[in-house]
Amino acid sequence: MSEDRKKLAIVVQAGTLDKLYCAFIMGSTAVAMDMEAHFYFTFWGLNMLVKGAMEKAGLPATYKHLEGQMRQNLQKMNYPTPYEMLKRMKQSGLLKIYACSPTMQMFGVKRESLIPEVDEIAGAAAFLEIAAEADITLFI
Amino acid sequence: MSEDRKKLAIVVQAGTLDKLYCAFIMGSTAVAMDMEAHFYFTFWGLNMLVKGAMEKAGLPATYKHLEGQMRQNLQKMNYPTPYEMLKRMKQSGLLKIYACSPTMQMFGVKRESLIPEVDEIAGAAAFLEIAAEADITLFI
Amino acid sequence: MSEDRKKLAIVVQAGTLDKLYCAFIMGSTAVAMDMEAHFYFTFWGLNMLVKGAMEKAGLPATYKHLEGQMRQNLQKMNYPTPYEMLKRMKQSGLLKIYACSPTMQMFGVKRESLIPEVDEIAGAAAFLEIAAEADITLFI
Repeated sequence: MSEDRKKLAIVVQAGTLDKLYCAFIMGSTAVAMDMEAHFYFTFWGLNMLVKGAMEKAGLPATYKHLEGQMRQNLQKMNYPTPYEMLKRMKQSGLLKIYACSPTMQMFGVKRESLIPEVDEIAGAAAFLEIAAEADITLFI
Repeated sequence: MSEDRKKLAIVVQAGTLDKLYCAFIMGSTAVAMDMEAHFYFTFWGLNMLVKGAMEKAGLPATYKHLEGQMRQNLQKMNYPTPYEMLKRMKQSGLLKIYACSPTMQMFGVKRESLIPEVDEIAGAAAFLEIAAEADITLFI
Repeated sequence: MSEDRKKLAIVVQAGTLDKLYCAFIMGSTAVAMDMEAHFYFTFWGLNMLVKGAMEKAGLPATYKHLEGQMRQNLQKMNYPTPYEMLKRMKQSGLLKIYACSPTMQMFGVKRESLIPEVDEIAGAAAFLEIAAEADITLFI
């Protein structure tokens, strides 16, 4: 971590399209503002780091009926997909992606099944250390 | 923003009654403690800023079966509605309401359909700047 | 609160197994790192402080179909239950548990029905004061 840059730390616990977009829009904006972004993917969020999973992310039960319409709107707007946004953020050199190791054990997820953009497999201690130094911390 | 007052920044991403109450009880308490409250409404939360929408907010799918009973309890307690709480907070002069512009585009929400209490239509950069200076930041 | 130790403040609004585990894994890790953990249970989270309730916590509607399999995995791993984790955290002397008084009124929950590990029944003001001094604040 740099000493100079402001830092955004996000726990991505959710695995639904609405919350992935929230996290990634915040993250994209942060790196565009020359902030560091530290994303710690856990639980349903961790499962979205499995190759091919993010492309299938949908809306939560409460809003499931709006999923088709939302996908149409996003396509019409040529809105980037969550994975496209993640890759663009990564190109900035300012995004660091952590995969939660206890979740991987709990769900039987192997390292080789994760997307190559993951920087580090880490436990909660790594996240707490980053969050304690961050300027903004969110649990999404 | 004042230099002296403590600041509470909340992303209101949720559009359900339980989370609106959480955000608004925190906000009401904060302004009563002479803190500034900055609420950035995005996604389902943004949709609650459309005139008439907040009055229809319900519980999420997991708790839908408790909605009728909860409304009855709230009425018996003469509990203020979320919109009433928002208007009272606004009267303190310490609440600033931001409507997320990317969400408005995504859902086709026009400025004139929003409640008059909205102070500013803004992107994520505006929120990140506020959150970086805030004493407490929550994503609800 | 000690002046020296780092502080983690969490609003536990959720009452589902996935989010209880997130909160409690963070909390357990924090106290193991000699941080203070301050947990403010509100809404569905508050309802989990009622004796016997935490043992019945399930997954949210979106993931309900995975509940059986998750319970099996946790048992095979000999993973502690949320209540077991809470009691272990409490033994560290570094966890303080607050029960949200407005929620107790809203749901008609009496003090004597809460688990004995609750330290204090408190309103949002108590939480905001702690959060304003905390190093990390999360809304789960």
